[in-house]
Amino acid sequence: MKLLKEKIINEGKVVDSEVLKVDNFLNHQLDINFLNEIGKEFKEIFKDIKVDRILTIESSGIAIAYAAAKYFDVPVVFAKKTESRSLDEEIYESQIFSFTKGRAYKARVSKKYIKNGENILILDDFLANGRAVLGLKSIVEQASANLSGVGIVIEKGFQEGGRLLRDMGINLKSLAIIDSMEKGKIKFR
Amino acid sequence: MKLLKEKIINEGKVVDSEVLKVDNFLNHQLDINFLNEIGKEFKEIFKDIKVDRILTIESSGIAIAYAAAKYFDVPVVFAKKTESRSLDEEIYESQIFSFTKGRAYKARVSKKYIKNGENILILDDFLANGRAVLGLKSIVEQASANLSGVGIVIEKGFQEGGRLLRDMGINLKSLAIIDSMEKGKIKFR
Repeated sequence: MKLLKEKIINEGKVVDSEVLKVDNFLNHQLDINFLNEIGKEFKEIFKDIKVDRILTIESSGIAIAYAAAKYFDVPVVFAKKTESRSLDEEIYESQIFSFTKGRAYKARVSKKYIKNGENILILDDFLANGRAVLGLKSIVEQASANLSGVGIVIEKGFQEGGRLLRDMGINLKSLAIIDSMEKGKIKFR
Repeated sequence: MKLLKEKIINEGKVVDSEVLKVDNFLNHQLDINFLNEIGKEFKEIFKDIKVDRILTIESSGIAIAYAAAKYFDVPVVFAKKTESRSLDEEIYESQIFSFTKGRAYKARVSKKYIKNGENILILDDFLANGRAVLGLKSIVEQASANLSGVGIVIEKGFQEGGRLLRDMGINLKSLAIIDSMEKGKIKFR
């Protein structure tokens, strides 16, 4: 997606060869008009699949899922990372290891919000090692729902997540794939 | 707001006299069309004030702020509750005590995303004791910005936040104020 690549080049900040900061438009400040284009693009890419619900994980996935949901005209459900009184007792749960944070956390979704046989589209901001997507996939499977697709805004192509998920036969689409960020220079696939 | 009150009555769940669950449309599953109406309503209520940026806090505030930002045509910035590599070193920070969780947490905003003299509208899903809003207000003040208004979806009128903030002269508007939830029955103000 051309607009996204330009945005990454112009506003992203390469911290080191593994960390890209896009807090200017994607995960701290939100550029609403840009996110709307992201949502539209996901609908275009996934126009041929059935989607009953969009699943993401708090917090950075929420705005992206919201933007896309308007075009799919389906509800969003976001997995929670923290214990919450607003969560039901009846939940699907999976353990996710974060390489960035060096520790595991749990993702939880109320059983009310993913139903047997539904077609689920997972959306998230970044794909690196793929652990968050695998955790959400496990929740979809626990619900006996169908994983229709996985949409990612920025895939770090130099980490294993993309290959791992594609090798499993998952319908994964990334709007931008970065192959390297050596010496502060971003190379797209 | 009539639509919101109906939604609370029909889909909300009173857990006890202090806890209302609205995870069906506001803070776990997101009803996109409904949230769009919430966004439109905030614009209507705050149509006479200047807003350069909307400030909220992860996670439940994000979708609400996004929905409203479209009508104000301004960016959103959401305060982070966790340490993050995507945050700058240069941040505004405030400590917030959560009565729900019985512990304090920090809210952080990069100095890049709130500027001196800007007009800031704070939006959030719930107002109870008002500590989250006071924490965000402190961040606005640290930035020498101007707090134009505070918009809340659901105010728990039986807790002290609303009175506290109004007594301080804050331009606080809540789309629904609940005066009590005794015996499972919701009474609106």
